[in-house]
Amino acid sequence: MIKVGIVGGTGYTGVELLRLLAQHPEVSVEAITSRSETGVKVCDMYPNLRGHCDTLTFSEPDARKLGALDAVFFATPHGVAHALAGELLTNGTRVIDLSADFRLRDADLWSEWYGQAHGAPELLGEAVYGLPEMHREKIRNARLIAVPGCYPTAVQLGFLPLLEAGLIDAQQLIADCKSGVTGAGRGAKVGSLLAEASESFKAYGASGHRHLPEIRQGLNDMQQSPVGLTFVPHLTPMIRGIHATLYSQLTTEADDLQTLFEQRYANEPFVDVMPAGSHPETRSVKGNNTCRLAVHRPAGGNTVVVLSVIDNLVKGASGQAIQNLNLMFGLDETLGLNAPALMP
Amino acid sequence: MIKVGIVGGTGYTGVELLRLLAQHPEVSVEAITSRSETGVKVCDMYPNLRGHCDTLTFSEPDARKLGALDAVFFATPHGVAHALAGELLTNGTRVIDLSADFRLRDADLWSEWYGQAHGAPELLGEAVYGLPEMHREKIRNARLIAVPGCYPTAVQLGFLPLLEAGLIDAQQLIADCKSGVTGAGRGAKVGSLLAEASESFKAYGASGHRHLPEIRQGLNDMQQSPVGLTFVPHLTPMIRGIHATLYSQLTTEADDLQTLFEQRYANEPFVDVMPAGSHPETRSVKGNNTCRLAVHRPAGGNTVVVLSVIDNLVKGASGQAIQNLNLMFGLDETLGLNAPALMP
Amino acid sequence: MIKVGIVGGTGYTGVELLRLLAQHPEVSVEAITSRSETGVKVCDMYPNLRGHCDTLTFSEPDARKLGALDAVFFATPHGVAHALAGELLTNGTRVIDLSADFRLRDADLWSEWYGQAHGAPELLGEAVYGLPEMHREKIRNARLIAVPGCYPTAVQLGFLPLLEAGLIDAQQLIADCKSGVTGAGRGAKVGSLLAEASESFKAYGASGHRHLPEIRQGLNDMQQSPVGLTFVPHLTPMIRGIHATLYSQLTTEADDLQTLFEQRYANEPFVDVMPAGSHPETRSVKGNNTCRLAVHRPAGGNTVVVLSVIDNLVKGASGQAIQNLNLMFGLDETLGLNAPALMP
Amino acid sequence: MIKVGIVGGTGYTGVELLRLLAQHPEVSVEAITSRSETGVKVCDMYPNLRGHCDTLTFSEPDARKLGALDAVFFATPHGVAHALAGELLTNGTRVIDLSADFRLRDADLWSEWYGQAHGAPELLGEAVYGLPEMHREKIRNARLIAVPGCYPTAVQLGFLPLLEAGLIDAQQLIADCKSGVTGAGRGAKVGSLLAEASESFKAYGASGHRHLPEIRQGLNDMQQSPVGLTFVPHLTPMIRGIHATLYSQLTTEADDLQTLFEQRYANEPFVDVMPAGSHPETRSVKGNNTCRLAVHRPAGGNTVVVLSVIDNLVKGASGQAIQNLNLMFGLDETLGLNAPALMP
Repeated sequence: MIKVGIVGGTGYTGVELLRLLAQHPEVSVEAITSRSETGVKVCDMYPNLRGHCDTLTFSEPDARKLGALDAVFFATPHGVAHALAGELLTNGTRVIDLSADFRLRDADLWSEWYGQAHGAPELLGEAVYGLPEMHREKIRNARLIAVPGCYPTAVQLGFLPLLEAGLIDAQQLIADCKSGVTGAGRGAKVGSLLAEASESFKAYGASGHRHLPEIRQGLNDMQQSPVGLTFVPHLTPMIRGIHATLYSQLTTEADDLQTLFEQRYANEPFVDVMPAGSHPETRSVKGNNTCRLAVHRPAGGNTVVVLSVIDNLVKGASGQAIQNLNLMFGLDETLGLNAPALMP
Repeated sequence: MIKVGIVGGTGYTGVELLRLLAQHPEVSVEAITSRSETGVKVCDMYPNLRGHCDTLTFSEPDARKLGALDAVFFATPHGVAHALAGELLTNGTRVIDLSADFRLRDADLWSEWYGQAHGAPELLGEAVYGLPEMHREKIRNARLIAVPGCYPTAVQLGFLPLLEAGLIDAQQLIADCKSGVTGAGRGAKVGSLLAEASESFKAYGASGHRHLPEIRQGLNDMQQSPVGLTFVPHLTPMIRGIHATLYSQLTTEADDLQTLFEQRYANEPFVDVMPAGSHPETRSVKGNNTCRLAVHRPAGGNTVVVLSVIDNLVKGASGQAIQNLNLMFGLDETLGLNAPALMP
Repeated sequence: MIKVGIVGGTGYTGVELLRLLAQHPEVSVEAITSRSETGVKVCDMYPNLRGHCDTLTFSEPDARKLGALDAVFFATPHGVAHALAGELLTNGTRVIDLSADFRLRDADLWSEWYGQAHGAPELLGEAVYGLPEMHREKIRNARLIAVPGCYPTAVQLGFLPLLEAGLIDAQQLIADCKSGVTGAGRGAKVGSLLAEASESFKAYGASGHRHLPEIRQGLNDMQQSPVGLTFVPHLTPMIRGIHATLYSQLTTEADDLQTLFEQRYANEPFVDVMPAGSHPETRSVKGNNTCRLAVHRPAGGNTVVVLSVIDNLVKGASGQAIQNLNLMFGLDETLGLNAPALMP
Repeated sequence: MIKVGIVGGTGYTGVELLRLLAQHPEVSVEAITSRSETGVKVCDMYPNLRGHCDTLTFSEPDARKLGALDAVFFATPHGVAHALAGELLTNGTRVIDLSADFRLRDADLWSEWYGQAHGAPELLGEAVYGLPEMHREKIRNARLIAVPGCYPTAVQLGFLPLLEAGLIDAQQLIADCKSGVTGAGRGAKVGSLLAEASESFKAYGASGHRHLPEIRQGLNDMQQSPVGLTFVPHLTPMIRGIHATLYSQLTTEADDLQTLFEQRYANEPFVDVMPAGSHPETRSVKGNNTCRLAVHRPAGGNTVVVLSVIDNLVKGASGQAIQNLNLMFGLDETLGLNAPALMP
């Protein structure tokens, strides 16, 4: 059994790790930390886990104890993993960080968007961006993984085949994204109340969102030059799910885009290219690690529309983190991630 | 009192007309028709109207009786108004059609999208497209109004100032639109069940939707030449509301877009340009006839993002129909439409 | 025009007062207070009110300014009205308190349930419990109104005809109540997040809820002796609405309960007894001041089941407060409260 | 591998069987029938199952092919299992019927509630009511299982310890039940549309619901004499979940009810008695086979309030069906049913 810990276990990505790992045959959760809930039993806070981790109790984060584990997940606000990751790595504990701390390779860019100095720039060189569809081999050998953000996962997987194939104008990319409210976390904010967020739809961060530089970095890698991207996130009244609607312009005689997508993802266990003409629903991936894609060319014109859905808490966070762990420890990549989505 | 009838009163736009007209001091609903519900009391079907129209009963459509009224609203599927409008107009009854029957000026284009011959091409010449912000003077003198569709209203009001001012590349317009489920009507379809449409988000009609030619016709008028438009509608899990996110590219040194929008709509009673940096929520217009707009230029670049929200059943249908009636009968344009949105 | 102020205007009952009063032809809102939002324009916080009260700004509560008004609504947490009501009454300003401060006639009982001393026991003698269906005449002459709570309104109106007629065993009353989440207020609590409260249903306060003594006091008045009541509130995933399902046992040969209810409420403008066999829906009163009732005797047995629905923010709070104001100032009781419910 | 078939696989209990069985290591789904969808691939209708049963296609029901299987689930409207069960049993195929066909032991009572003659009264003698907490040993040896209804499961498990212990007045039982909309099935009915059922709460069937005789039969068994039960079901705006709130009167000096419940269910793998004072949420069992219970005595009086939650599609249908199958085939009772609930 691989012994793991979770730092910051009270949020939605923390409890989702527990839910998924309860089904994982090769992983044992040995510690879960929370400063605010120290001493509370996990299943008192999350009764869905009653019977699944009845002996697990939130504890203070303790680098020594965590350092005795095989791997530690960070399900924390940004800044926390900066402070602890180095010591864990020195102890030989692998780090899988679900926060934004190691996603941007450029520490200055990180500081600009997160409003504070980067706390561990010396680790950026070895941090691997944990998008298996791009970086599978590096992930296998990594000690430190930056799990991609939820929007970045949906957007990058949608643009990837088009950019790699050099088919579109990379200066005019548009990502119109819609997220359920768990994307805003479990913090008690008025705007996330059912009475405020239900029966309504709105954009936010139209002038700039922290996932923008992360997406841009990923797309730049695919394009191998700087791209131009407009990214507008929206809040949709549901618990889980991201739907990215991606617009770009073909620059060449159009290939068969359906085949392009199918071939690019033929061997990917967690990317499902739907039949031509499909419109993937977010509920088709509820609780599941799959990204479902469909590609359209309205009226056969030059505009390509890619529809990409994920569960923001699974492929957009905790499921992808476990997919990375499976790769890092030489396990079957899909272990613990096989349950179908809950539908309806 | 202006005596009106409603043909096809059992659907959502029909009951919304009744709800709004119950507050209108100058209009009296004299007849409401429904072939399937003939003899049923309106308030037995819609208990929210108990106490408001207790004597009103659904009846068979009868052209003679309807022809004795001052105006008739059609809240019907396409094709019905084609068959009845001519006779009513001959009798001097004005017609306000909420269906798609008279929205497209080109009968052939209509046939192509609706899969049947146009039933009243001889009336197209006098039909007025009922978007007051574009055609107010024509509406005042019209006998036959084609009330704009819900998506077309939200999209046209968002692009209008930019196109009129000639500031954007009209060949690259993108309208990413999201609608609540009442947009699909009150028909019993599996896809509209709560168990199917709730907790999920999806696109539909990405390859072509009937509102596309209507929007294009309107934008062509503003641009005074054919535009290029990609329109992708989505279904969002809520009852009412449309959010249009509009993307275009500036072609000139940017003007002050905020001022442009504010000035264009300064005298419009039902268009509200929100302060710079705003993100209008659909709930801010729930039950209300306003279109709220915000205009953004992310990172000060050349991409303009317009956010436009309406209630699809009010400004997108029944409220706009009443706004047209007010204009046609020389009333205060806002009569019966003044109640604030229901929030939360 | 009657000049009114609102103390504590940022919560849901405050904004609902503004929404309803925007439609009231005889009332002008002159002041709205909030310590936390002083200086903020009301319509910046509640964009649904843009165009309806654009000059209104939250201010510090100031007894002198409020004392110059005809009436002041308190839409505050408990305790606040205790501190201010006396001074206002002395100035001749009438007080309509939506909080719990003056609902219980017994100051000791109040202290027991609210965990603090009663701040104005000297006013209890003249406070009138603002349930017009019970106390209309007293309300007309009152200076100080305690607006009933939301659950108490739904439960009392449901039991009223049965208790007044002496038909049921008053020792075995059961009120199983379900509320939308606005009942929990606009405070930022984790349990009220969309991600927590949506797609779930639960009871709360099964061992005792603050509305219990208020309901009991009202039922005691109707029965003219102490009743035995079990009250279990539940949270249902919707914004507005209360559904009370009331169970009691007939003790006499059954009368015609349908007629009993219809006669008792024949002249009540805001109580609607539905036809026999009906199941009122909460959405039939969304945004509206009506209480809709239906009475059932399953299998013709001795158990009576009353179904009672209200909008917790309207008949359960702000609408009933305005109904009281109308009575106090000799206006038509329904003024400003006539708009039909929003449905769907 | 146990080879099973599913008759009537297009409804919600059918697809839920597929979702759960996809995780079951000892069961293989060999056939799934649907008259209306014959020839359609299962995963085209239910994209959440893409990758899980890609070769499965809906077929016409064929008694010969089904008769070659080890067991057949009926996820059909009532009446269908009557017609097919006998032939299957003759072939040695075990039948697990999720419909109401074999739940009532009295064929006349069945006819009365279902409005048609019972189609297989000769099988009633051997049909076993598949509530393992009551009939585990009989289930192990059964050939024909009547899987309990959703409401009956939640209500019976809540009353069971009290009735078995003889502590309550069995003539005054009240079950106030709330269900998500999947309880109404996947049929296209106006009342189940999101636009109709969302943002609303209502009772239905207050005068009599088909689950009433089933519940009564089960409670009679526990009490060993006829009980008096009032059962009022309600529709709550969510996809899955049932919450039963059960009221009864203690007739003896009260025992320690918490201990009573804990002891009665100590060895039950799918009944979870929560700590004293708890309020179970339906979301804590979303997608999961557990029934969570809490028992309250408000103010220490004689009224007992039991709160009981299940997922109507799992413990209330498909999960319980699989639990029965596990018992019938000598497997670990929990096989395939171990995944924690999806929360949030």
